[in-house]
Amino acid sequence: MSRWEPNSRGRLERAALELYRERGFDRTTVAEIAERAGLTERTFFRHFTDKREVLFGGQQLLHRILVDTVAGAPDSVAPFDAVAAAVVAVATEMENGREYARQRREVIAANPSLRERELIKLAALSSAMAEALRTRGVPDPAASLTAEAGIAVFKIAFERWQDGPRELTFADHIRDGLEQLRTIAAGA
Amino acid sequence: MSRWEPNSRGRLERAALELYRERGFDRTTVAEIAERAGLTERTFFRHFTDKREVLFGGQQLLHRILVDTVAGAPDSVAPFDAVAAAVVAVATEMENGREYARQRREVIAANPSLRERELIKLAALSSAMAEALRTRGVPDPAASLTAEAGIAVFKIAFERWQDGPRELTFADHIRDGLEQLRTIAAGA
Repeated sequence: MSRWEPNSRGRLERAALELYRERGFDRTTVAEIAERAGLTERTFFRHFTDKREVLFGGQQLLHRILVDTVAGAPDSVAPFDAVAAAVVAVATEMENGREYARQRREVIAANPSLRERELIKLAALSSAMAEALRTRGVPDPAASLTAEAGIAVFKIAFERWQDGPRELTFADHIRDGLEQLRTIAAGA
Repeated sequence: MSRWEPNSRGRLERAALELYRERGFDRTTVAEIAERAGLTERTFFRHFTDKREVLFGGQQLLHRILVDTVAGAPDSVAPFDAVAAAVVAVATEMENGREYARQRREVIAANPSLRERELIKLAALSSAMAEALRTRGVPDPAASLTAEAGIAVFKIAFERWQDGPRELTFADHIRDGLEQLRTIAAGA
Protein backbone atom coordinates (compact mmCIF):
# COMPACT_ATOMS: atom_id res chain seq x y z
CA MET A 1 0.00 0.00 0.00
CA SER A 2 1.65 3.22 -1.05
CA ARG A 3 1.24 6.48 0.77
CA TRP A 4 -0.41 9.32 -1.11
CA GLU A 5 2.40 11.67 -2.09
CA PRO A 6 1.02 14.84 -3.64
CA ASN A 7 3.20 16.28 -6.39
CA SER A 8 6.10 13.97 -5.59
CA ARG A 9 7.47 14.52 -9.09
CA GLY A 10 7.70 18.29 -8.67
CA ARG A 11 9.13 17.93 -5.18
CA LEU A 12 11.87 15.63 -6.45
CA GLU A 13 12.67 18.05 -9.28
CA ARG A 14 12.99 20.98 -6.92
CA ALA A 15 15.01 19.03 -4.34
CA ALA A 16 17.41 17.78 -7.02
CA LEU A 17 17.96 21.26 -8.45
CA GLU A 18 18.63 22.66 -4.96
CA LEU A 19 21.17 19.96 -4.18
CA TYR A 20 22.89 20.16 -7.56
CA ARG A 21 23.37 23.88 -6.98
CA GLU A 22 24.57 23.46 -3.40
CA ARG A 23 26.93 20.49 -3.83
CA GLY A 24 27.32 20.02 -7.55
CA PHE A 25 25.69 17.35 -9.69
CA ASP A 26 28.42 14.73 -9.24
CA ARG A 27 28.43 14.92 -5.46
CA THR A 28 24.67 14.49 -5.04
CA THR A 29 23.10 11.04 -4.61
CA VAL A 30 19.56 9.89 -5.37
CA ALA A 31 19.17 9.02 -1.67
CA GLU A 32 19.90 12.65 -0.77
CA ILE A 33 17.44 13.98 -3.32
CA ALA A 34 14.70 11.69 -2.01
CA GLU A 35 15.48 12.67 1.57
CA ARG A 36 15.38 16.41 0.79
CA ALA A 37 12.01 15.91 -0.92
CA GLY A 38 10.73 13.90 2.06
CA LEU A 39 10.24 10.85 -0.16
CA THR A 40 11.85 7.45 -0.68
CA GLU A 41 14.41 6.37 -3.27
CA ARG A 42 11.77 4.00 -4.58
CA THR A 43 9.50 6.93 -5.31
CA PHE A 44 12.39 8.66 -7.11
CA PHE A 45 12.88 5.70 -9.40
CA ARG A 46 9.15 5.46 -10.04
CA HIS A 47 9.42 8.89 -11.69
CA PHE A 48 12.95 9.07 -13.09
CA THR A 49 15.39 6.50 -14.44
CA ASP A 50 18.48 8.32 -13.15
CA LYS A 51 19.97 11.45 -11.60
CA ARG A 52 20.20 13.21 -14.94
CA GLU A 53 16.58 12.61 -15.98
CA VAL A 54 15.22 14.54 -13.01
CA LEU A 55 16.40 17.72 -14.77
CA PHE A 56 14.45 16.85 -17.90
CA GLY A 57 11.03 16.32 -16.38
CA GLY A 58 9.50 18.95 -18.68
CA GLN A 59 10.45 17.06 -21.82
CA GLN A 60 7.12 15.23 -22.24
CA LEU A 61 5.11 18.43 -21.97
CA LEU A 62 7.33 20.25 -24.50
CA HIS A 63 7.09 17.24 -26.81
CA ARG A 64 3.31 17.25 -26.61
CA ILE A 65 2.97 21.01 -27.19
CA LEU A 66 5.31 20.96 -30.21
CA VAL A 67 3.71 17.93 -31.84
CA ASP A 68 0.11 18.99 -31.13
CA THR A 69 0.70 22.50 -32.46
CA VAL A 70 2.30 21.24 -35.67
CA ALA A 71 -0.36 18.56 -36.13
CA GLY A 72 -3.21 20.94 -35.33
CA ALA A 73 -2.24 23.76 -37.70
CA PRO A 74 -4.72 24.20 -40.58
CA ASP A 75 -3.65 22.65 -43.89
CA SER A 76 -3.20 26.10 -45.41
CA VAL A 77 -0.40 26.95 -42.95
CA ALA A 78 3.12 26.62 -44.42
CA PRO A 79 5.42 24.10 -42.65
CA PHE A 80 7.76 26.80 -41.31
CA ASP A 81 4.79 28.73 -39.92
CA ALA A 82 3.43 25.61 -38.21
CA VAL A 83 6.83 25.04 -36.58
CA ALA A 84 7.06 28.73 -35.70
CA ALA A 85 3.68 28.51 -33.94
CA ALA A 86 4.87 25.40 -32.08
CA VAL A 87 8.05 26.99 -30.69
CA VAL A 88 6.13 30.15 -29.73
CA ALA A 89 3.64 27.92 -27.87
CA VAL A 90 6.46 26.22 -25.95
CA ALA A 91 8.05 29.57 -25.09
CA THR A 92 4.71 30.83 -23.80
CA GLU A 93 4.37 27.72 -21.62
CA MET A 94 7.86 28.35 -20.15
CA GLU A 95 7.42 32.11 -19.70
CA ASN A 96 6.67 31.97 -15.96
CA GLY A 97 9.53 29.60 -15.22
CA ARG A 98 12.36 31.99 -16.05
CA GLU A 99 14.08 31.65 -12.68
CA TYR A 100 13.76 27.86 -12.56
CA ALA A 101 15.09 27.72 -16.13
CA ARG A 102 18.04 29.93 -15.15
CA GLN A 103 19.06 27.72 -12.25
CA ARG A 104 18.63 24.57 -14.29
CA ARG A 105 20.70 25.99 -17.14
CA GLU A 106 23.53 26.86 -14.72
CA VAL A 107 23.66 23.29 -13.42
CA ILE A 108 23.59 21.86 -16.95
CA ALA A 109 26.29 24.22 -18.23
CA ALA A 110 28.63 23.08 -15.43
CA ASN A 111 28.44 19.41 -16.35
CA PRO A 112 29.39 17.96 -19.78
CA SER A 113 27.26 14.83 -19.31
CA LEU A 114 24.22 17.02 -18.63
CA ARG A 115 24.97 19.17 -21.67
CA GLU A 116 25.07 16.02 -23.77
CA ARG A 117 21.75 14.85 -22.33
CA GLU A 118 20.23 18.26 -23.08
CA LEU A 119 21.36 18.07 -26.70
CA ILE A 120 19.91 14.60 -27.20
CA LYS A 121 16.60 15.80 -25.72
CA LEU A 122 16.51 18.71 -28.16
CA ALA A 123 17.32 16.32 -31.00
CA ALA A 124 14.36 14.17 -29.92
CA LEU A 125 12.06 17.22 -29.99
CA SER A 126 13.31 18.05 -33.48
CA SER A 127 12.65 14.48 -34.68
CA ALA A 128 9.15 14.54 -33.22
CA MET A 129 8.29 17.78 -35.03
CA ALA A 130 9.77 16.42 -38.28
CA GLU A 131 7.58 13.36 -37.91
CA ALA A 132 4.50 15.55 -37.31
CA LEU A 133 5.36 17.47 -40.50
CA ARG A 134 5.71 14.24 -42.49
CA THR A 135 2.26 13.23 -41.27
CA ARG A 136 1.03 16.52 -42.78
CA GLY A 137 2.52 15.44 -46.10
CA VAL A 138 5.73 17.49 -45.96
CA PRO A 139 8.44 15.43 -47.71
CA ASP A 140 12.04 15.06 -46.56
CA PRO A 141 14.47 16.77 -46.35
CA ALA A 142 12.07 19.72 -45.95
CA ALA A 143 10.39 18.15 -42.89
CA SER A 144 13.68 17.57 -41.03
CA LEU A 145 15.13 20.91 -42.08
CA THR A 146 12.10 22.86 -40.96
CA ALA A 147 12.07 21.09 -37.59
CA GLU A 148 15.82 21.63 -37.10
CA ALA A 149 15.47 25.31 -37.99
CA GLY A 150 12.69 25.63 -35.41
CA ILE A 151 14.80 24.01 -32.70
CA ALA A 152 17.78 26.23 -33.60
CA VAL A 153 15.60 29.31 -33.13
CA PHE A 154 14.33 27.89 -29.85
CA LYS A 155 17.85 27.22 -28.46
CA ILE A 156 19.18 30.65 -29.35
CA ALA A 157 16.07 32.49 -28.19
CA PHE A 158 16.32 30.63 -24.88
CA GLU A 159 19.85 31.95 -24.29
CA ARG A 160 18.81 35.47 -25.17
CA TRP A 161 15.74 35.30 -22.97
CA GLN A 162 17.96 34.24 -20.08
CA ASP A 163 20.67 36.82 -20.67
CA GLY A 164 18.57 39.67 -22.03
CA PRO A 165 16.50 42.41 -20.42
CA ARG A 166 13.50 41.33 -18.35
CA GLU A 167 11.02 43.28 -20.50
CA LEU A 168 11.44 40.90 -23.41
CA THR A 169 9.54 37.64 -23.16
CA PHE A 170 10.78 34.27 -24.38
CA ALA A 171 8.15 34.44 -27.12
CA ASP A 172 9.48 37.86 -28.19
CA HIS A 173 12.93 36.35 -28.67
CA ILE A 174 11.47 33.42 -30.59
CA ARG A 175 9.59 35.74 -32.96
CA ASP A 176 12.71 37.85 -33.46
CA GLY A 177 14.77 34.71 -34.18
CA LEU A 178 12.24 33.43 -36.72
CA GLU A 179 12.26 36.78 -38.47
CA GLN A 180 16.05 36.92 -38.51
CA LEU A 181 16.28 33.40 -39.88
CA ARG A 182 14.02 34.41 -42.77
CA THR A 183 16.28 37.36 -43.53
CA ILE A 184 19.45 35.29 -43.22
CA ALA A 185 18.24 32.51 -45.49
CA ALA A 186 17.11 35.06 -48.04
CA GLY A 187 20.82 35.89 -48.29
CA ALA A 188 20.72 39.41 -46.89
CA MET B 1 63.14 6.67 -26.48
CA SER B 2 59.90 6.04 -28.38
CA ARG B 3 59.64 3.89 -31.43
CA TRP B 4 58.68 5.58 -34.68
CA GLU B 5 55.05 4.64 -35.28
CA PRO B 6 53.90 5.85 -38.67
CA ASN B 7 50.25 6.92 -38.79
CA SER B 8 49.53 5.51 -35.34
CA ARG B 9 46.50 7.78 -35.08
CA GLY B 10 44.87 6.43 -38.21
CA ARG B 11 45.74 2.83 -37.25
CA LEU B 12 44.06 3.27 -33.87
CA GLU B 13 40.97 4.78 -35.49
CA ARG B 14 40.62 1.90 -37.92
CA ALA B 15 41.31 -0.75 -35.27
CA ALA B 16 38.72 0.80 -32.93
CA LEU B 17 36.05 0.95 -35.63
CA GLU B 18 36.71 -2.68 -36.58
CA LEU B 19 36.41 -3.85 -32.98
CA TYR B 20 33.33 -1.75 -32.22
CA ARG B 21 31.62 -3.35 -35.22
CA GLU B 22 32.73 -6.88 -34.33
CA ARG B 23 32.08 -6.82 -30.58
CA GLY B 24 30.12 -3.68 -29.88
CA PHE B 25 31.44 -0.48 -28.36
CA ASP B 26 30.80 -1.47 -24.73
CA ARG B 27 32.59 -4.78 -24.97
CA THR B 28 35.79 -3.37 -26.48
CA THR B 29 38.70 -2.22 -24.31
CA VAL B 30 41.45 0.28 -25.07
CA ALA B 31 43.99 -2.54 -24.60
CA GLU B 32 42.30 -4.51 -27.37
CA ILE B 33 42.25 -1.52 -29.71
CA ALA B 34 45.95 -0.88 -29.14
CA GLU B 35 46.74 -4.57 -29.68
CA ARG B 36 44.78 -4.73 -32.93
CA ALA B 37 46.63 -1.65 -34.15
CA GLY B 38 49.97 -3.17 -33.12
CA LEU B 39 50.56 -0.32 -30.68
CA THR B 40 50.61 0.22 -26.93
CA GLU B 41 47.88 1.58 -24.67
CA ARG B 42 50.21 4.46 -23.90
CA THR B 43 50.24 5.41 -27.55
CA PHE B 44 46.44 5.27 -27.59
CA PHE B 45 46.22 7.74 -24.72
CA ARG B 46 48.77 9.99 -26.38
CA HIS B 47 46.24 10.50 -29.17
CA PHE B 48 42.82 10.08 -27.52
CA THR B 49 41.47 10.77 -24.05
CA ASP B 50 39.02 7.86 -24.11
CA LYS B 51 37.32 5.11 -26.08
CA ARG B 52 34.69 7.49 -27.42
CA GLU B 53 37.11 10.12 -28.71
CA VAL B 54 38.77 7.70 -31.12
CA LEU B 55 35.60 7.94 -33.25
CA PHE B 56 35.85 11.73 -33.41
CA GLY B 57 39.40 12.04 -34.70
CA GLY B 58 38.20 14.07 -37.70
CA GLN B 59 36.75 16.82 -35.51
CA GLN B 60 39.82 19.08 -35.61
CA LEU B 61 40.04 18.96 -39.38
CA LEU B 62 36.33 19.76 -39.79
CA HIS B 63 36.67 22.57 -37.28
CA ARG B 64 39.57 24.07 -39.17
CA ILE B 65 37.87 23.83 -42.59
CA LEU B 66 34.64 25.42 -41.32
CA VAL B 67 36.35 28.27 -39.48
CA ASP B 68 38.91 28.98 -42.20
CA THR B 69 36.26 29.04 -44.91
CA VAL B 70 34.00 31.42 -42.98
CA ALA B 71 36.93 33.63 -41.98
CA GLY B 72 38.40 33.63 -45.47
CA ALA B 73 35.24 34.59 -47.38
CA PRO B 74 35.41 38.07 -48.95
CA ASP B 75 33.64 40.82 -47.00
CA SER B 76 31.03 41.12 -49.73
CA VAL B 77 29.81 37.56 -49.11
CA ALA B 78 26.62 37.35 -47.02
CA PRO B 79 26.90 35.38 -43.72
CA PHE B 80 24.65 32.56 -44.91
CA ASP B 81 26.69 32.21 -48.10
CA ALA B 82 29.95 32.05 -46.12
CA VAL B 83 28.50 29.27 -43.94
CA ALA B 84 27.14 27.56 -47.05
CA ALA B 85 30.63 27.57 -48.59
CA ALA B 86 32.06 26.18 -45.33
CA VAL B 87 29.69 23.19 -45.15
CA VAL B 88 30.20 22.47 -48.84
CA ALA B 89 33.97 22.48 -48.20
CA VAL B 90 33.59 19.98 -45.35
CA ALA B 91 31.36 17.75 -47.48
CA THR B 92 33.93 17.81 -50.27
CA GLU B 93 36.66 16.80 -47.81
CA MET B 94 34.53 13.85 -46.61
CA GLU B 95 33.40 12.75 -50.08
CA ASN B 96 35.90 9.88 -50.42
CA GLY B 97 35.20 8.55 -46.94
CA ARG B 98 31.62 7.45 -47.56
CA GLU B 99 32.20 3.83 -46.48
CA TYR B 100 34.17 4.79 -43.35
CA ALA B 101 31.45 7.32 -42.49
CA ARG B 102 28.79 4.66 -42.96
CA GLN B 103 30.46 2.21 -40.58
CA ARG B 104 31.15 4.91 -38.03
CA ARG B 105 27.55 6.11 -38.17
CA GLU B 106 26.29 2.56 -37.57
CA VAL B 107 28.43 2.23 -34.43
CA ILE B 108 27.34 5.64 -33.16
CA ALA B 109 23.64 4.99 -33.81
CA ALA B 110 23.82 1.81 -31.71
CA ASN B 111 25.12 3.57 -28.60
CA PRO B 112 23.34 6.45 -26.83
CA SER B 113 26.55 7.74 -25.20
CA LEU B 114 28.17 7.97 -28.63
CA ARG B 115 25.12 9.76 -30.04
CA GLU B 116 25.40 12.29 -27.24
CA ARG B 117 29.10 12.80 -27.92
CA GLU B 118 28.34 13.29 -31.62
CA LEU B 119 25.76 15.96 -30.82
CA ILE B 120 28.13 17.86 -28.55
CA LYS B 121 30.80 17.76 -31.26
CA LEU B 122 28.34 19.21 -33.78
CA ALA B 123 27.37 21.89 -31.26
CA ALA B 124 31.06 22.78 -30.91
CA LEU B 125 31.39 23.13 -34.70
CA SER B 126 28.35 25.38 -34.72
CA SER B 127 29.81 27.58 -31.95
CA ALA B 128 33.12 27.83 -33.78
CA MET B 129 31.40 29.03 -36.96
CA ALA B 130 29.27 31.48 -35.00
CA GLU B 131 32.45 32.89 -33.46
CA ALA B 132 34.06 33.20 -36.91
CA LEU B 133 30.96 35.12 -38.07
CA ARG B 134 31.13 37.46 -35.06
CA THR B 135 34.76 38.18 -35.96
CA ARG B 136 33.46 39.24 -39.38
CA GLY B 137 31.16 41.68 -37.63
CA VAL B 138 27.94 39.68 -37.79
CA PRO B 139 25.96 40.45 -34.62
CA ASP B 140 24.03 37.97 -32.50
CA PRO B 141 21.57 36.31 -32.77
CA ALA B 142 22.25 36.31 -36.54
CA ALA B 143 25.73 34.79 -36.08
CA SER B 144 24.48 31.87 -33.95
CA LEU B 145 21.39 31.34 -36.09
CA THR B 146 23.35 31.25 -39.33
CA ALA B 147 25.85 28.77 -37.89
CA GLU B 148 23.06 26.55 -36.48
CA ALA B 149 21.26 26.61 -39.81
CA GLY B 150 24.48 25.53 -41.54
CA ILE B 151 24.98 22.62 -39.13
CA ALA B 152 21.33 21.58 -39.52
CA VAL B 153 21.81 21.40 -43.29
CA PHE B 154 25.06 19.47 -42.76
CA LYS B 155 23.42 16.88 -40.45
CA ILE B 156 20.46 16.24 -42.71
CA ALA B 157 22.55 16.18 -45.89
CA PHE B 158 24.86 13.65 -44.22
CA GLU B 159 21.94 11.26 -43.62
CA ARG B 160 20.72 11.65 -47.17
CA TRP B 161 24.18 11.13 -48.60
CA GLN B 162 24.46 7.91 -46.61
CA ASP B 163 21.00 6.61 -47.47
CA GLY B 164 20.61 8.05 -50.94
CA PRO B 165 21.72 6.94 -54.41
CA ARG B 166 25.49 6.73 -55.03
CA GLU B 167 25.36 9.22 -57.91
CA LEU B 168 24.64 12.11 -55.57
CA THR B 169 27.64 13.51 -53.72
CA PHE B 170 27.59 14.80 -50.16
CA ALA B 171 28.10 18.30 -51.58
CA ASP B 172 25.06 17.82 -53.86
CA HIS B 173 22.92 17.06 -50.81
CA ILE B 174 24.33 20.07 -48.96
CA ARG B 175 23.51 22.39 -51.87
CA ASP B 176 20.01 20.94 -52.11
CA GLY B 177 19.51 21.40 -48.35
CA LEU B 178 20.68 25.02 -48.46
CA GLU B 179 18.31 25.74 -51.31
CA GLN B 180 15.41 24.05 -49.53
CA LEU B 181 16.11 25.97 -46.34
CA ARG B 182 15.88 29.23 -48.30
CA THR B 183 12.52 28.19 -49.69
CA ILE B 184 11.25 26.99 -46.31
CA ALA B 185 12.25 30.15 -44.45
CA ALA B 186 10.66 32.27 -47.18
CA GLY B 187 7.43 30.62 -46.03
CA ALA B 188 6.62 28.70 -49.16
